[in-house]
Amino acid sequence: MAVGSKAPRIDGIAKVTGQAKFTGDLNLADLVEAKVLRSPLPHAIVESIDIQKAAALPGVVAVLTRDDIKDIDPFYGNCLRDRALVALDKVRFVGEPVAVVAAENVLIAEEALSLIDVHYDELPCLSTVDDALAPGAPLLHETTAGAGEFHDIAILGTAMKPNVCHYEQYTKGDAARGLAEADEIIEETFEFPMIYQYAMEPHTSVARFSDEGIALWTSSAHPFLVRSELAHMFGLPHAKVEVIVPYVGGAYGSKSYFKIEPLIVAMARKTGGRPVRLAQSVPESMLTTRRHSARVRIKTGFTRDGTLMAREAEVVMDTGAYADNGPRVAKRAISRMIGPYKLAHCKVDVTAVYTNSVPAGSMRSIGGPQTIWALESHMDSIAHRLGFDPLEFRLRNLLQRGEELKSGATTVDADLRQGTKVAAGAVNWGTSPRRLSKGEGVAVGVSDSEAMPVSVALVRLLADGSVILIAGTTEVGQGARTILSQLVAQELHLPLERVTMRGTDTLATPFDRSTGASRSTTVMGNTVRAAALDLRAQLIAAAAEALNTNVSAITLRNGTAGAGDRTMSYADVVRAYFGMPGGELIGRGYMRPGEGFGSKFPLFWETGMGAAAIAVDMETGEIKIDRYVTVADVGKAINPVQAEGQDEGAAVQGLGHTLFESLLYENGQPLNANLVDYRVPRFTDIPDHFDSALVENEDGPGPYGAKGMGESGIVSIAPAVGNAIFRATGVRLRTLPLTPERVWRALKNAELAL
Amino acid sequence: MAVGSKAPRIDGIAKVTGQAKFTGDLNLADLVEAKVLRSPLPHAIVESIDIQKAAALPGVVAVLTRDDIKDIDPFYGNCLRDRALVALDKVRFVGEPVAVVAAENVLIAEEALSLIDVHYDELPCLSTVDDALAPGAPLLHETTAGAGEFHDIAILGTAMKPNVCHYEQYTKGDAARGLAEADEIIEETFEFPMIYQYAMEPHTSVARFSDEGIALWTSSAHPFLVRSELAHMFGLPHAKVEVIVPYVGGAYGSKSYFKIEPLIVAMARKTGGRPVRLAQSVPESMLTTRRHSARVRIKTGFTRDGTLMAREAEVVMDTGAYADNGPRVAKRAISRMIGPYKLAHCKVDVTAVYTNSVPAGSMRSIGGPQTIWALESHMDSIAHRLGFDPLEFRLRNLLQRGEELKSGATTVDADLRQGTKVAAGAVNWGTSPRRLSKGEGVAVGVSDSEAMPVSVALVRLLADGSVILIAGTTEVGQGARTILSQLVAQELHLPLERVTMRGTDTLATPFDRSTGASRSTTVMGNTVRAAALDLRAQLIAAAAEALNTNVSAITLRNGTAGAGDRTMSYADVVRAYFGMPGGELIGRGYMRPGEGFGSKFPLFWETGMGAAAIAVDMETGEIKIDRYVTVADVGKAINPVQAEGQDEGAAVQGLGHTLFESLLYENGQPLNANLVDYRVPRFTDIPDHFDSALVENEDGPGPYGAKGMGESGIVSIAPAVGNAIFRATGVRLRTLPLTPERVWRALKNAELAL
Repeated sequence: MAVGSKAPRIDGIAKVTGQAKFTGDLNLADLVEAKVLRSPLPHAIVESIDIQKAAALPGVVAVLTRDDIKDIDPFYGNCLRDRALVALDKVRFVGEPVAVVAAENVLIAEEALSLIDVHYDELPCLSTVDDALAPGAPLLHETTAGAGEFHDIAILGTAMKPNVCHYEQYTKGDAARGLAEADEIIEETFEFPMIYQYAMEPHTSVARFSDEGIALWTSSAHPFLVRSELAHMFGLPHAKVEVIVPYVGGAYGSKSYFKIEPLIVAMARKTGGRPVRLAQSVPESMLTTRRHSARVRIKTGFTRDGTLMAREAEVVMDTGAYADNGPRVAKRAISRMIGPYKLAHCKVDVTAVYTNSVPAGSMRSIGGPQTIWALESHMDSIAHRLGFDPLEFRLRNLLQRGEELKSGATTVDADLRQGTKVAAGAVNWGTSPRRLSKGEGVAVGVSDSEAMPVSVALVRLLADGSVILIAGTTEVGQGARTILSQLVAQELHLPLERVTMRGTDTLATPFDRSTGASRSTTVMGNTVRAAALDLRAQLIAAAAEALNTNVSAITLRNGTAGAGDRTMSYADVVRAYFGMPGGELIGRGYMRPGEGFGSKFPLFWETGMGAAAIAVDMETGEIKIDRYVTVADVGKAINPVQAEGQDEGAAVQGLGHTLFESLLYENGQPLNANLVDYRVPRFTDIPDHFDSALVENEDGPGPYGAKGMGESGIVSIAPAVGNAIFRATGVRLRTLPLTPERVWRALKNAELAL
Repeated sequence: MAVGSKAPRIDGIAKVTGQAKFTGDLNLADLVEAKVLRSPLPHAIVESIDIQKAAALPGVVAVLTRDDIKDIDPFYGNCLRDRALVALDKVRFVGEPVAVVAAENVLIAEEALSLIDVHYDELPCLSTVDDALAPGAPLLHETTAGAGEFHDIAILGTAMKPNVCHYEQYTKGDAARGLAEADEIIEETFEFPMIYQYAMEPHTSVARFSDEGIALWTSSAHPFLVRSELAHMFGLPHAKVEVIVPYVGGAYGSKSYFKIEPLIVAMARKTGGRPVRLAQSVPESMLTTRRHSARVRIKTGFTRDGTLMAREAEVVMDTGAYADNGPRVAKRAISRMIGPYKLAHCKVDVTAVYTNSVPAGSMRSIGGPQTIWALESHMDSIAHRLGFDPLEFRLRNLLQRGEELKSGATTVDADLRQGTKVAAGAVNWGTSPRRLSKGEGVAVGVSDSEAMPVSVALVRLLADGSVILIAGTTEVGQGARTILSQLVAQELHLPLERVTMRGTDTLATPFDRSTGASRSTTVMGNTVRAAALDLRAQLIAAAAEALNTNVSAITLRNGTAGAGDRTMSYADVVRAYFGMPGGELIGRGYMRPGEGFGSKFPLFWETGMGAAAIAVDMETGEIKIDRYVTVADVGKAINPVQAEGQDEGAAVQGLGHTLFESLLYENGQPLNANLVDYRVPRFTDIPDHFDSALVENEDGPGPYGAKGMGESGIVSIAPAVGNAIFRATGVRLRTLPLTPERVWRALKNAELAL
């Protein structure tokens, strides 16, 4: 059985031996190198750009500025088309591209940047969401230049508040009445920092522009959306925009939608047909995208017997200078603030706010860690107030399978108690003696991935019985090629090594909405399975023809088709069908809303529990995580090793914002946009006892009952650790990351308060 | 109507502006350059190869010899696997690869070649077919190393005759009896020279070998056959052999089957993952492949009233050192020797003979020009003997539609008289005063292309209504991408510019048997049409769903689907189907023997008539062609401008072997393997009045009644000119090319004989 096996990654050897080629490895004849001149100011009018000296430097091929994009629609954006590919009249964050140089080599390009003379007229900087929302604050965007997906619900500096990029409200019941009727109310405010997604490969693209159209190699997770956006901007049919995605060195949302692609294509349009490469450094990519910071105010009323009555929550997210995916992140935060607990009344307000900082986009579980940090810490506060054990309190209030989390949405499709108990049990829940600086914490994360079910796939059976799978899922390191190939091997009764899957080329690869939102195993998995089954039906028909029998008499086994005691290899079946050692059979799979999945969203709830056992150094404030377990309800693990690896990877990434990471700004100037000052987790940071457990009830809508996974591990670690700190010390921390200084200060403040 | 329109080539602008990229334009990171050490001897034992000095030269990356291919099957060949990718124990022609150097640049590689020390032990040279067939001649091949497609009928130095690569016989009735009963018999012997195919782009390949398999960019017309041959040799599944064909700068058969590909892949296997490029010069490609020379003895018996009674013919072809496509060329010569005339008794023997010269393979109309030169000259000799006008004589004897040309084969599927009359009429047949050094000649060519009907195609309708056609036909300059795109535009009711077709990549492009044998418009055309119709049905169903009506109510018009007064663009139909601005619909087309074509071969008879009006300079022997017209019965011209262009191109190429071209050998040494000494036609050689006419009775088995074309124009020009010389001078020439010296000598000999 291919499905459920711990097959090694099909691209593992190529990767560890360096044979796998990434976008930056691509060399083309006549390639020129691009470098970007970035704004040093957070907010300014661009009065003039003098490129004369730069353009005259020997070896410079072309210099791109706002003057070169007057004949196209320069604006892009997946939610709102509010951003130009290079600055027009204004710059709005430090790092915004103002000009691009293409030169024979990188050194010349860098020298040319120094010769470009830009005059700015500085404008007031809106450093924080408070600055931006203050009455009378200047507007960062007067209008949007184009309509995006979210255009109709965008509020751009309305009478209500200035600089609102997106506002979303959810109500259920009557929260005010519910709070009034509650025995007790707790209100807390939590802070979550700006986070950089940090993929090992920074953003890299190579573009060529000719009469044949655009050819773009790019480290993108969303090649088909890149295609349509470029087609829109440059006025080309989709069929003339070729987007090629080689191996990608990590994404985590940083390569979703459109990043450097519009800029590099515009540059390629100016180089007279010569291809141009932009390979960003990590510091440049840290000035390209980030995760939203958030302030979450949460107020819950409850009865003395432990029943939650009502909640009001307000989330304010810093979306930075341009919308990017901000509106969708805001929208997605809603369900996380409601939470997976029985709750009659609820009101949630989410606002994404423009500020003069790097645009915030997608990151693993969009809007999840910010809100679940708040909610799951808050749940412990309530349990404490009531004198309940936090685990017991959760088990008592968790929604049951089939109950409604959010009105109109898919009902809960998992046994949340089961995973929560597994997580708590794995850290020996409640065995640490209280208040001796050791303690356990648990958190439950339930989120709605927006896995849009639109994908198409092809599976080709060649005349030697080997198979090529063509599917537009980007292999970003998550192991998608292996998973999807396993599904093909399973349906076709073939060994995994007979299946080949390579990267996307939109001229050859059918449409896939995107890689992200935990949709590849589920949505693309079902699509690939449909294609494999379509192929299987053709294979059986051809075998029946060749063996002169009925299709019902044919059985497939390990690469052979048989009827009774007569068997043929698949190769022989194809050859017989075509009457020569050639030809091929092609299976086709389509997926669209309402087919293969239920008619409601989300397609599945993504569920992740985390439990931590920690020790706090009361002298230094340092936290040592002795034991951490992450539990994911995956429905069915197509490949358990990969599923565990992904969940552990997510937890380690969450360890970053829990203990270390925070992108810092001061008056619009980034302070630590480099990997020396910005600290991501290292191998030595991994807890001594670190494990993952999978819940497999085969109850998901994906193939073989799989659900999406890979995001859930990141959401629970911060509240689990925060709750463990509280249990260990009695001190509640509400701001991430939980640095020693911050913990120490909190401990000291608590001592002083006594 | 897209079909039948004179649409400009869809790749025309890219080609004339230099934006179209060919294999040699490809640059890859870490690319190394290969150069080939070639045998200076026509036949020798390779005693030793010392590569030590070459391998030690700084900048040399790897040197490949026979020692490096012991772990693979080094033999390849489409008919017989009789050739190793690099010389093993022996060399058998001047130019045979003995070693290959890969180095940082071409100059180093060339220097390294000079440092390789090869010791040969020279063997007797079989320069000619007479040498090779002489009793007791040494055998060039003792055995074949592997089984090829023709293995079962190969005769390798049988008791009958030595050095026979392939022997083929056809009999109908009793030729001996028929000859005995004839009133008169004429026997003649004709000679046809070795010809180089001369495509502007010489053979070029770039290969990379890794754990992911083979990646090969190559100027090949047969990428799918290259894939399976490489998979066989290197022990890989087809799905791990990626063959990519960018634009190709002409082929004419020179890029059929396998040329430099096995060698460059073996070299790439030795460079430690670095890609390697071999870009041959024209002289190197002239030592790589050629057209068969032939000696044709033809003997026909006939009655005094002009009825053909019986024919015996013997064709001996020089196949060179390795079989390449020799057996198939020999097989194909049969029908040409029978000829398209009423004939009760016939016996044809064809022998392809190994000699110590460049292997002969495919060239435009394999076996056609050699045999039709003989047959159509011979027909004029018979007419002259009988006192008939050669045109009248042909019209009297030509087979009618539905009559049998060759037993078991498809019957004649064209009105041969119609085209013949068009050709003759266009040169004002019979108006030149005889024997005043001016005259007209006509010739009829009918040949059976082996268009194997196995192809698969995909047509993708994207969410903006643009279309990508994925079909494995190689664009070699014949205009296939335009023709196939026109068919898609036609079936989908779309403007041609909405359709994009690019080159082959076997990882993404479905199987196509090959490009050649005039099968792309016919076989792939029907396949693409089937795919487009499959897509159209899906499109109509989706439109009916969106418009909430029946499929029968939907009509398609210029990119819109409508029912009554409601219409939607195709883009809107796709978007409605998938519920987002994405998704795509994919049409699929399969072609296999017996489907879409009759059950007999050939799928169609390829028919080309030529007529010439010439003047002979009686002093110098120089021939001036005043007027030439080539007529092709194309059934239906999908694009008349392209059809005419192809037919005229074929005639000009035929002008080469008619007047100028001949590859010369002396004792196994090539004398003129370069474009200075080997003379191809120039623009100034084109007749003043040069035209083509198409016969379109829409009676072919291809789309819209199309037949294959593009080969027929090359076969008739030599006999038409030879016949015109005879009419102008009374002298019959039987050896090509018709150089001034040869014509002058014939005129002088005739004078002396008087």
